[in-house]
Amino acid sequence: MEEIGILSTINIGDVFASSKKITEHDVKTFADLSGDHNPLHLDAKFASTSMFKQRVAHGMLTASLISAALASITGTVILTYVCFSFEKPVYMGDTLTARVVVVNVEGSKVNLNAEVLRGTERVLSGTVKILRK
Amino acid sequence: MEEIGILSTINIGDVFASSKKITEHDVKTFADLSGDHNPLHLDAKFASTSMFKQRVAHGMLTASLISAALASITGTVILTYVCFSFEKPVYMGDTLTARVVVVNVEGSKVNLNAEVLRGTERVLSGTVKILRK
Repeated sequence: MEEIGILSTINIGDVFASSKKITEHDVKTFADLSGDHNPLHLDAKFASTSMFKQRVAHGMLTASLISAALASITGTVILTYVCFSFEKPVYMGDTLTARVVVVNVEGSKVNLNAEVLRGTERVLSGTVKILRK
Repeated sequence: MEEIGILSTINIGDVFASSKKITEHDVKTFADLSGDHNPLHLDAKFASTSMFKQRVAHGMLTASLISAALASITGTVILTYVCFSFEKPVYMGDTLTARVVVVNVEGSKVNLNAEVLRGTERVLSGTVKILRK
């Protein structure tokens, strides 16, 4: 409990967010980093024949933006659980905002709702659990 | 059903995997890509005072390796849902294997169990849903 004492308080309803434009370079970087070279993300000709008619960003790249929103929480943040639904495709050039809202705090355990928005449209929704020390 | 006909079959119990060594460069690249500059991942001095005593890789970087395992499935793979528990910290230099196992197939909808292993030790476990076209 002493450790919590030196942290600023965190309360139900607190919101943390991070925004980013997804570029073609980001998608290529994520492909190399993760090892996911699915042509739906990288090959414009292949992607033009898909249900999306163009290349889409990796779902896990979109999900990674939640990590940045969590990093703006004061203290040491340790991710323990994530659950995400990918609701809409994300295209190169989209500007996304990842947003987390505190829904429960029990000592160092914090539960949050998470979403990624493109303007007012939600492209990802889910829940996250962290330890905050 | 015709589309499924031109794809190779996928069956319950099928396993797909991808391996990667997590380097310091990967962690820095992921930090810049996601916007998560949490010092637990980047600052060796800060991390030495944490419960882990050293820098740890971003949980979402570990989770991203599941994306590569899924990309080795034939056909167009679209990620619709992920749920992951981060069970152990991952350190720079760790060699990880992401592994998914098909647990249900209903037309284009495929459910899989997912895990990331460091040797025989599991660092991440969860479930994934994809559309396979």
